[in-house]
Amino acid sequence: MQLLKDKIMKEGNVLPGDVLKVDSFLNHQIDAELMQAVGNEFAEKFADAGITKILTLESSGIAPSVMAALQLKVPVVFARKRKSLTQNSNLYSASVYSYTKQESNEISVSEAHINSHDTLLIIDDFLANGQAVLGLLEIAEQAGAATAGVGIVIEKGFQPGGAMLREKGLRVESLAIIESLENLQITFKEAVEQ
Amino acid sequence: MQLLKDKIMKEGNVLPGDVLKVDSFLNHQIDAELMQAVGNEFAEKFADAGITKILTLESSGIAPSVMAALQLKVPVVFARKRKSLTQNSNLYSASVYSYTKQESNEISVSEAHINSHDTLLIIDDFLANGQAVLGLLEIAEQAGAATAGVGIVIEKGFQPGGAMLREKGLRVESLAIIESLENLQITFKEAVEQ
Repeated sequence: MQLLKDKIMKEGNVLPGDVLKVDSFLNHQIDAELMQAVGNEFAEKFADAGITKILTLESSGIAPSVMAALQLKVPVVFARKRKSLTQNSNLYSASVYSYTKQESNEISVSEAHINSHDTLLIIDDFLANGQAVLGLLEIAEQAGAATAGVGIVIEKGFQPGGAMLREKGLRVESLAIIESLENLQITFKEAVEQ
Repeated sequence: MQLLKDKIMKEGNVLPGDVLKVDSFLNHQIDAELMQAVGNEFAEKFADAGITKILTLESSGIAPSVMAALQLKVPVVFARKRKSLTQNSNLYSASVYSYTKQESNEISVSEAHINSHDTLLIIDDFLANGQAVLGLLEIAEQAGAATAGVGIVIEKGFQPGGAMLREKGLRVESLAIIESLENLQITFKEAVEQ
C-alpha cells in the first residue's frame, strides 16, 4: 500500500535494536484518514471472505479495525490485556509474550462476543514474532470460531512471525512489509507476498 | 443522542454498584457504525471550536475519537496507561485513579505530539468521577495547549464528575446522560444540559 509506505518513509523512526517507531500516525498519535485508507484496504482484500467479526488487541489495533469494520459492516472485538472489574462473564484467554515490552500479558475476550458461528478477521498493527496473533488465534479456537485471515498494517519481514503464520496455512495480508532496518535505514519488500 | 440512548436501553447491562456495562458496543465489542454516528456528533458540536487535535485515553476512547477526527480532519493522540519501551522521548504525565478498577494509573503522552499551538478536544467513553478527564487536562496544561471542550459518550449524571468539570468553566458535551441506575433501571436525563 503506497500511501502507507510513503508515510512510514516520511515519519517512521528507526531505533537501534530493529525498532521502528511510528508513534506519529499509528501507535500514539493516530492519522484518522490514513487509518480509513488502511481499513478500506483490509475490507477490500477480505470482502468475499464471509467475515462476521474483526478480532484485534488493544490499543493500537483498534483504529484500523474500526475503519475496516465500518466497510465490512461487522463489529470489532478487542482483546483486553488486563481483566477489568466490570467484566464478570466467562473469558477466553491466552498468554502473549511481547518482545518489545519484555513481558507476558494475559489477553482475554468475553465469551459473550465470539462464538462458533463467527468467521473472524484478525487485525493488528505490527507483525514481528507473531505472538499476539497466535494468542488471538488461540482465543478464536477456544470460541470454536473460524479465522478467515490476518490483516497486518506493518510486517517486519525479517522477523519470523509472518513465515510462521503463513506456514500454518493462514492468509496473512500485510499492507507494508519491511525487509530490513539495517543501518537504521528502512527497506521495503518490493511486492507484498502471500 | 437518541440512537445512542436506544442502544444503551437495548444492550446496556446494569450491575449492582451503579455499574453500567456496555461491552457489546463500546468497551469490548465496538459497533463501528454507532461510533461513526457518535464521532460525527462530536465533530458537529465542536465544528467551530478551532480544534487542532483530539486527546483521549486508551482503549475505549480510541474508536469514538478516530471517528470524530475523521470529520474534523485532525489527528488523535491517545494517552497511554503504561510507558512502553519504544517511547524514549520526554513525556507529559498525570496520575489517574479509577474507581472502577480501584487502582491508580500513570497516564502519559509524548511531548512530541502536543504543544502550545494546539487547541484540544478531550474525548472519553465514560464520565463518572471525572478523574480521567482531570488527568488529560493536566497533560494539556503541561503542554501549554488550550482545551476547547470535552466530549463524553456516556455521562453518569448522578456522579460528581460532570458538575465538577462544568464548574471549572469547561464545555462538556455528553451524548447520553444517565440520571439514575437505581433498582438496576436506566433512566436518562430528559435534556442534555450544559
